[in-house]
Amino acid sequence: MLSKTTKFAATILTMPNISYQDLFDFTNAVFKAMGCSDKDAMTATNSLIRADLRGVDSHGVARLSGYVRLWEAKRANATPDVRVVHETPSTAVVDGDSGLGLVVAPFAMQVAIDKAKNVGTGWVSVRNSNHFGIAATHAMMALEQDMIGIAMTNASALVSPTFSKERLLGTNPICVVIPAGKEPAFVADLATTTAANGKLEILQRKNLEAPEGWIQDKEGNSSIDPHELKKGGALLPLGGTRESGSHKGYALGAVVDIFSAVFSGANYGPWVPPFPAYIPMPENMPGKGIGHFFGAMRIDAFREAHEFKQHMDQWIQRFRNSVPVDPQQPVLIPGDPEREMEAERMKNEIPLLEAVWKDLKEVGDRFGAELKRS
Amino acid sequence: MLSKTTKFAATILTMPNISYQDLFDFTNAVFKAMGCSDKDAMTATNSLIRADLRGVDSHGVARLSGYVRLWEAKRANATPDVRVVHETPSTAVVDGDSGLGLVVAPFAMQVAIDKAKNVGTGWVSVRNSNHFGIAATHAMMALEQDMIGIAMTNASALVSPTFSKERLLGTNPICVVIPAGKEPAFVADLATTTAANGKLEILQRKNLEAPEGWIQDKEGNSSIDPHELKKGGALLPLGGTRESGSHKGYALGAVVDIFSAVFSGANYGPWVPPFPAYIPMPENMPGKGIGHFFGAMRIDAFREAHEFKQHMDQWIQRFRNSVPVDPQQPVLIPGDPEREMEAERMKNEIPLLEAVWKDLKEVGDRFGAELKRS
Repeated sequence: MLSKTTKFAATILTMPNISYQDLFDFTNAVFKAMGCSDKDAMTATNSLIRADLRGVDSHGVARLSGYVRLWEAKRANATPDVRVVHETPSTAVVDGDSGLGLVVAPFAMQVAIDKAKNVGTGWVSVRNSNHFGIAATHAMMALEQDMIGIAMTNASALVSPTFSKERLLGTNPICVVIPAGKEPAFVADLATTTAANGKLEILQRKNLEAPEGWIQDKEGNSSIDPHELKKGGALLPLGGTRESGSHKGYALGAVVDIFSAVFSGANYGPWVPPFPAYIPMPENMPGKGIGHFFGAMRIDAFREAHEFKQHMDQWIQRFRNSVPVDPQQPVLIPGDPEREMEAERMKNEIPLLEAVWKDLKEVGDRFGAELKRS
Repeated sequence: MLSKTTKFAATILTMPNISYQDLFDFTNAVFKAMGCSDKDAMTATNSLIRADLRGVDSHGVARLSGYVRLWEAKRANATPDVRVVHETPSTAVVDGDSGLGLVVAPFAMQVAIDKAKNVGTGWVSVRNSNHFGIAATHAMMALEQDMIGIAMTNASALVSPTFSKERLLGTNPICVVIPAGKEPAFVADLATTTAANGKLEILQRKNLEAPEGWIQDKEGNSSIDPHELKKGGALLPLGGTRESGSHKGYALGAVVDIFSAVFSGANYGPWVPPFPAYIPMPENMPGKGIGHFFGAMRIDAFREAHEFKQHMDQWIQRFRNSVPVDPQQPVLIPGDPEREMEAERMKNEIPLLEAVWKDLKEVGDRFGAELKRS
């Protein structure tokens, strides 16, 4: 019998690898076959597989077949008329026309950047969209312009507010990216829950229990069963328990929901449409699609850019060089692990789970897109 | 011997009470005696005792003698020339000229509001300030204008980033207030730590242990000793442990620090000046004073105000009426407990701890301000 370590190594060894370019070409071909324009297919592909590059495997091509099914169910529009429907010099509301969030989000982030060029900052709330992949992809568009970037989105309800049995919030991430000088940018991208759903899926596959504070059962009792969500349980807001501050995670998730959806006219709370196309839509929906929120702030709207960057470098260096509890585990700057993963996977290919590979293969066969195993 | 409950009741009974008006007059007289103008004394008093009204006793008049000592040590300026030093149509940097944060913060928030009137949103970073009381006081200025209000501040370092032994961040609160229609406003005001320092002080007074995940000792081990901070220990970021998401609390606290201080030219990280005037200033400080960050967004910059408010009401009602785990503990909307406390204390007087009463009495005697016991 194999030891645990050998088994794990064996899993790694049999994981199919694919180069970034091959994964890009395949994904791009699928989006084109769905009817996306060349430009939109390119944008959607870039948005989606940035997650695979950065090691957020749950939000990358593992979801490609899910996007395809949303399109087949006519819940996602491959040729949307994405447009600004309301604006002031520093704000806008964008209607995504049921387009892929992977395409709608970069459009809206660009509107925020353009407004920041004119008046210092730009803030855009989006309705009538779909899931947009990882928030960091969109927020990071600001970096090239010497701007701070902000991205948030709501999502279908998996999270119970403090004291509630019901699921009323999504994992509602907040991403803030801040440029530096010689140091790489600060990139914080966090679900407003103790743990994102992708982490539960890993525990399920490995047959492990979840730590206390991640989930509750359908009666609201603390649970360590990673399958609890399928039984009516819920994820918990960041903080986990009331005593450890779950009301703060709840408040942050609520702010994301309101900025993304009440600002724009999207659905909020328990009415956010589900990602899996087989789940029926909620009844009495108060808005259109799911909502996002983006912000861009020019650094020189506050301070000369070179001064700002010099102090960001000092900030980053002071934190990175702080005395660690364990000398083997240095203190990290938000974004460090994902940036290292991105460099590594760009160079050495991207590993895919066998199940994801099979799923992509099926999508490719249907759409005439070839998936090349390295 | 008294039972625990009777002892507690006895403590309550012997707590001196004071009416809002008497506490206002006393505090106002102290600020005037410090040399504040009539207008600034009024503003500082309003800012400070709003904390007492809202039940955040650690941030109210309990700190008045601390502000006085900062002024005596010439670290706080009673007659500052607070001014905008850099701006774009939607942004500004304010220099607080070492003024009381209680005065500087409302000035800066007003700049944000004025910019929002013109271009939809306003964003103001502040340097060279001092502690500003509770964030909610300032953010709530936006509500009267049908705006969303945002307030943050950095503070002297008591918090260790994930994996670090050192204290590098303050409890760095984030406050977001959102107007509604018939419902009271949504008011989220949260330290980016598991628990604020004020909660540790309560445990110290009651001789109770702290829950796991609130603090670590000076070697970075988890601790339940509420006196740990005096022994070189640290508060933990929201999430508590790495497994439960402390890297998220760390990232949020870091964003507050950067927006408040790297944007404006204030001190950040371990260089933020301490509130107690007897603690020496850090060496090699990279900026001026402590930093704050404020935002104001007109709701009609995104959507017609009546539509926005109607949906905020629906959001609030859906969450408030959600099925509770314990029927005795309904689900709360952020700001509910503080609003109820404010109404209660405005009507029925404000209880002060005996130690706070004594401290105020001493300040009053020195400054010729009379403290009237109800």
